[in-house]
Amino acid sequence: MDDRTLTFQRPSAEALASVTNALAKKFGNRFSANETIRQQHAHTLTWGANQPPDCVVYPQSSEEVASIVSLCAGQGVPVIAFGTGTSLEGHVNAPFGGVSVDLSMMNRILEVHPEDLDCVVEPGVTRKALNEYLRDQGLFFPIDPGADASIGGMASTRASGTNAVRYGTMKDNVLSLEVVTASGEIIRTARRAKKSSAGYDLTRLFIGAEGTFGIITKITLKLHGIPEAISGGICPFPSVKAACDATILTIQSGLPIARIELLDELQVKAANIHSRLGLRETPMLLVEFHGSAASVAEQAARFGEIAEEFGGGPFEWATKPEDRTRLWQARHDSYWASLALRPGAKAVASDVCVPISRLAECVTETQRDIAAAGLIAPIVGHVGDGNFHVCVLVDMDDPADVKRTEDFLHRLVRRGLDMEGTCTGEHGIGQTKMKYMVEEHSAGTLDLMRSIKRALDPAGIMNPGKIV
Amino acid sequence: MDDRTLTFQRPSAEALASVTNALAKKFGNRFSANETIRQQHAHTLTWGANQPPDCVVYPQSSEEVASIVSLCAGQGVPVIAFGTGTSLEGHVNAPFGGVSVDLSMMNRILEVHPEDLDCVVEPGVTRKALNEYLRDQGLFFPIDPGADASIGGMASTRASGTNAVRYGTMKDNVLSLEVVTASGEIIRTARRAKKSSAGYDLTRLFIGAEGTFGIITKITLKLHGIPEAISGGICPFPSVKAACDATILTIQSGLPIARIELLDELQVKAANIHSRLGLRETPMLLVEFHGSAASVAEQAARFGEIAEEFGGGPFEWATKPEDRTRLWQARHDSYWASLALRPGAKAVASDVCVPISRLAECVTETQRDIAAAGLIAPIVGHVGDGNFHVCVLVDMDDPADVKRTEDFLHRLVRRGLDMEGTCTGEHGIGQTKMKYMVEEHSAGTLDLMRSIKRALDPAGIMNPGKIV
Repeated sequence: MDDRTLTFQRPSAEALASVTNALAKKFGNRFSANETIRQQHAHTLTWGANQPPDCVVYPQSSEEVASIVSLCAGQGVPVIAFGTGTSLEGHVNAPFGGVSVDLSMMNRILEVHPEDLDCVVEPGVTRKALNEYLRDQGLFFPIDPGADASIGGMASTRASGTNAVRYGTMKDNVLSLEVVTASGEIIRTARRAKKSSAGYDLTRLFIGAEGTFGIITKITLKLHGIPEAISGGICPFPSVKAACDATILTIQSGLPIARIELLDELQVKAANIHSRLGLRETPMLLVEFHGSAASVAEQAARFGEIAEEFGGGPFEWATKPEDRTRLWQARHDSYWASLALRPGAKAVASDVCVPISRLAECVTETQRDIAAAGLIAPIVGHVGDGNFHVCVLVDMDDPADVKRTEDFLHRLVRRGLDMEGTCTGEHGIGQTKMKYMVEEHSAGTLDLMRSIKRALDPAGIMNPGKIV
Repeated sequence: MDDRTLTFQRPSAEALASVTNALAKKFGNRFSANETIRQQHAHTLTWGANQPPDCVVYPQSSEEVASIVSLCAGQGVPVIAFGTGTSLEGHVNAPFGGVSVDLSMMNRILEVHPEDLDCVVEPGVTRKALNEYLRDQGLFFPIDPGADASIGGMASTRASGTNAVRYGTMKDNVLSLEVVTASGEIIRTARRAKKSSAGYDLTRLFIGAEGTFGIITKITLKLHGIPEAISGGICPFPSVKAACDATILTIQSGLPIARIELLDELQVKAANIHSRLGLRETPMLLVEFHGSAASVAEQAARFGEIAEEFGGGPFEWATKPEDRTRLWQARHDSYWASLALRPGAKAVASDVCVPISRLAECVTETQRDIAAAGLIAPIVGHVGDGNFHVCVLVDMDDPADVKRTEDFLHRLVRRGLDMEGTCTGEHGIGQTKMKYMVEEHSAGTLDLMRSIKRALDPAGIMNPGKIV
């Protein structure tokens, strides 16, 4: 229904001037209206147009964030939270202008409670910086999207990564948030207890809300002990279907595998070029086991049997930590590696997630579709969760290529939805996937989401034009 | 602020008559306004007053639930969802009258997808019925509150139980919900993919909302394979503190223990009386390990070492499944067993949950408090999560005893909150714990919860007078 749709608008020139002047005065050299800086803050790893904010501020505390939001709320000026800008779906674009709140200076690790396996961090801390910090204490934070994203951005997009099959996603690894609401109030969503039934789950509501309800200013994260033993390696398969089938059986048999990642033949080729891996160019599963030494050995043996059942092998173990790091770095670099397949092209990534029983079918059909459409598009996937990514290499100067890619990405999402899946397993909706929200959720569900948006952000200033 | 508080009221006599007449006509013998039935539907395992609904209906489909809610919405008549009535905090009371929607006839298991490790059930299915049904397929659903609660009620109170330390709570084990909203629309919160970043997490919003946003009519649950090996048993400790310290070290060392439950000496005594266990009356940890045969043996050995470090043991293994069942049944019956400690008394249970580093301190102080107050109050706990229950045996005819108990329960919650914990780990807020919401969450957070309540239930008809 039309009357239920949300509408947003650009602030008036007066309102905007009043806000930018006040921010410039308050933040001094932590304020910028420079054209390049503004464009950088609208940059996302997508092919959408760059829609820069009117200015960028760099707060250093929750109170400063609250003061920015209060100021903007008073004048109806949009506020867009910015982490590291590694979003893939246009989350940080500013279609209605406004203030980009760059949280990179809020990058302190405030508390670590080793005895409770949790910590409190500011949103600008990146996942790698956090793990660097934790290592000495024998702890780690498992969520690892490809980029070295900020924890705040990861919470806001409900990110996951290669460890999700064992450790869950951001929704499973956040105990509590401090948030600046759309009215500029600082609230906390929960306490530090490991579980609670005390009222509505505001933590989970802000996770994945992409900054459309408020700005996350502190995050209490669950941590894990670094496993006593880690082993893993890479296993070739005769086909993507065989690799998916092996994955399905691994999950179904309850093997507590920590990571199980698919690289199709094209992605292996890209990794060979980018990271000089020298791998055979055939579909591969990159796996890792965590646990005690005995348990890891047992898991690996059981996985080896499963792989063999589907014609996989021989398994190449990465026993030395540096070999393991090299393999996983190659996996994390897959986005950048894929660029090597078509120099000069833009890489446009999309992800879908389906029930695991449909995974082999979904990936196989997608490969067929890529071939039929004449695209260059490697596939990687967190296949243990039924989640995979396609990265299309597009010549942005060739309208026919752009059109072919658009049509393909549309069919990819459709295929995922037709198989009871979701249009995004972990990248989020942003701007790019808003068009699938009704199809995925139904109009009634989307209406309900909009009524929450309206309740929590009545003036529509929090990252407008995203999700709903 | 007063203007932010929600107010509810009883419907007018005309509105009520119009609804009850329509329901009586539509539902025939699946409608009742009988006094006893009404009182049963306001019965919860608490000492709060019985506040019966005006009538009870027994729908058999989502569409029937939607028609009931639509009818009530049109007349401003409260709607209270009812599962098995095992709530401990007055969730199903009807302080403003209205219609109790008893979901016990919606108890079908609709789909089981063994290959995806999930299933779709109606809300009236109980946890035991579900596990009975799943057993032949080698699957189980781990969440197990003490009572044989309904899955809908468990979702609505964000229930957990003895397996939560390993398998999480209801929030971690629901993939998707079908819900009848306050306007009587049927919506679905998510698809069947194992993870998704597609918009707001409505699933988690309805979980723990205690029926104040809508009525859950279908639940898609994650399932788990029955472990290849299960072993466990019971281990005595010289003190509650020693048992808690052993628990803390077990968790901190990353042992993937499936269950670790504390029974204090008084609870052991109650279990001995109720279930004829013949155990030594000293604090006990009841533990269970899940995994492969080798992994279970390794876990058990490691736990044995930890227990010994704190003076625990000797460990008594329950190798035979029937012994294990008897032990866990005794644990699940602890509420009923505790009644044996003071025949004729009422058992009033409360639960708090604190960061695990504070657990030993919190339980020890609570035991001291119980002794000083002269109460009879056994303690059991899902101590792996920092969560424990105190069950006070009260003589309801003795006002001094009632007062003593009230004061003690208040101090218990305060103690939990003072240690960064929550006023309820798994029982929910209901009516009884509403008074702690501001203290736990702050006024700002509670305001935010209220604005969501207002957005999703503008007429205030969904289980009014609960949570917010």
